[in-house]
Amino acid sequence: MDPITILETRERILAEQNADGDKLRGELTGKGVFFVNVMASPGAGKTTLLVRTIRALTEQGYRVGVMEADVDSAVDAETVRRETQARVIQLHTGGSCHMDADMTARGIDRFGVEDLDVLFLENVGNLVCPAEFDVGAHLKVMLLSVPEGDDKPLKYPLMFEVSDILLINKIDTAPVFDFDFAACEERARKRNPEMEIHRLSALTGDGFDSWVAALTDRIRAFQAETAHP
Amino acid sequence: MDPITILETRERILAEQNADGDKLRGELTGKGVFFVNVMASPGAGKTTLLVRTIRALTEQGYRVGVMEADVDSAVDAETVRRETQARVIQLHTGGSCHMDADMTARGIDRFGVEDLDVLFLENVGNLVCPAEFDVGAHLKVMLLSVPEGDDKPLKYPLMFEVSDILLINKIDTAPVFDFDFAACEERARKRNPEMEIHRLSALTGDGFDSWVAALTDRIRAFQAETAHP
Repeated sequence: MDPITILETRERILAEQNADGDKLRGELTGKGVFFVNVMASPGAGKTTLLVRTIRALTEQGYRVGVMEADVDSAVDAETVRRETQARVIQLHTGGSCHMDADMTARGIDRFGVEDLDVLFLENVGNLVCPAEFDVGAHLKVMLLSVPEGDDKPLKYPLMFEVSDILLINKIDTAPVFDFDFAACEERARKRNPEMEIHRLSALTGDGFDSWVAALTDRIRAFQAETAHP
Repeated sequence: MDPITILETRERILAEQNADGDKLRGELTGKGVFFVNVMASPGAGKTTLLVRTIRALTEQGYRVGVMEADVDSAVDAETVRRETQARVIQLHTGGSCHMDADMTARGIDRFGVEDLDVLFLENVGNLVCPAEFDVGAHLKVMLLSVPEGDDKPLKYPLMFEVSDILLINKIDTAPVFDFDFAACEERARKRNPEMEIHRLSALTGDGFDSWVAALTDRIRAFQAETAHP
C-alpha cells in the first residue's frame, strides 16, 4: 500500500514566553514556594489526584495552596476545598485553552502565596496548548489516564517532552481497557528519556506512595536549596 | 463558608473566522459533499466511532472520505485505512490545537473531494479550542466518553453550545465509572437546548443504530436540498 499522505497545514508556532516564566519562577523561589503545574486531558483525574496528594502533604505538615484553572465553573475548586484543608482559588481563563505566565502571575498576585510551602496549578484540561506555555512552575506533572489509550505520546508529543513526571492514572480500570503499559512508557520515554513515570489510581490510592515520596523528595530538595522554611 | 473566589484572568477571545467557514461550507454544498466535524477530548473514541460509522455508511452505498487532524503521527489515518474502505489523508497541524477554516480548505484542496458524498474531519483531540473555529462543516458532532465524567458540560461549555449532536461514548464501561447520564444530559441541554444526544459504545456497537439513522437522515436531507447525488 502507498504510505499515508501527510499534509503539514501550518508551521509550528511555539510561544516565546519563557522569559515571563523564568521571572515568576524566580519570585516563587525567593518566597520558598514550590510550584507544581499539573496538566492532562479533560477527565484524566487531575482533581482527584490533587485531593489525595494534598491530604498526604498536609499530613506531613506542608502548607498547600491550589489554583484551579478552568474555562468555566468552580466545581474543581469546590471539590478541593470540601475534601482538603488547602487554600484554593478558581481561575477562569476567559475561554482560553491554557494558562500562561502572565495569567498565572495575576492569579498568584490575587491569591497570595506567602503562607504556602507548595502551590499547585491545575491547568485547563487539554493535552496540547498548556504544553507550550511556561507558567513559572518548578515541576511539570502530566496525567494520562488508562481510558485515553496508550498511543497518546505519539499524538501529543510536546506534552510528554516538556513534563518532568508522567502519572498513568486510573490503573484500577485497566481490566476493561486495552492499554499496553510497556508500549505507552516506551513511547513516552522516546519523547523524553528523562521522564519519571508512576502508575497509580488516584481513586483507590494504588501506587500512590511512590508518587508522594517522589514529590516529597523534590519539595525537600527545593527547600534545602532555597533555605526554606 | 465563603463563596469560592473566582478570578477572570483573561477576556474571552473568540476567533472571527465565520466568514471563511461559510465560504468553505458553500463550496462543499455546491459539490454535494456533506461535511462533518468530529470533536472530542484525546482518547474519547473518535477514531473507533469513525471506523464503525464509515462501515455503516459504506454499506448503504455512500462514498466516504476522512481527514485525520493531529499534532503528530499518522496512527489514526492508518487505522481508518486498514479498517474501512474510506479514502483518508492525515493532516498535521504544526503544533496547533485545532483546525481552522483555512487549514481545512488547504487539506480539502490537496485531498480532493469531488468523488465523495460524505467527508469527515477528525479534529485534534481537544475539548476547548476546536469549538471556537468554524471549519465549514454542515454538522458538528462531539463525543464525550464515560470515563471523562459527567461534569464536562460545566467546564467546557462552548463545545456543548456549538455542537449539533452529542454522542456519549464508551457506555460499555459505565459499570466501572461513577457517571450520571441524566445529570450530564441535563447539563448539556442547559448549554444547548437543541442538542441531539445519543448514548453508544463505538467499541461494542451498542446504541449505534440510532446514531447512524440520525446521521443518514441528515445526509439524505442535505442531498435532497442540494439535488445530489
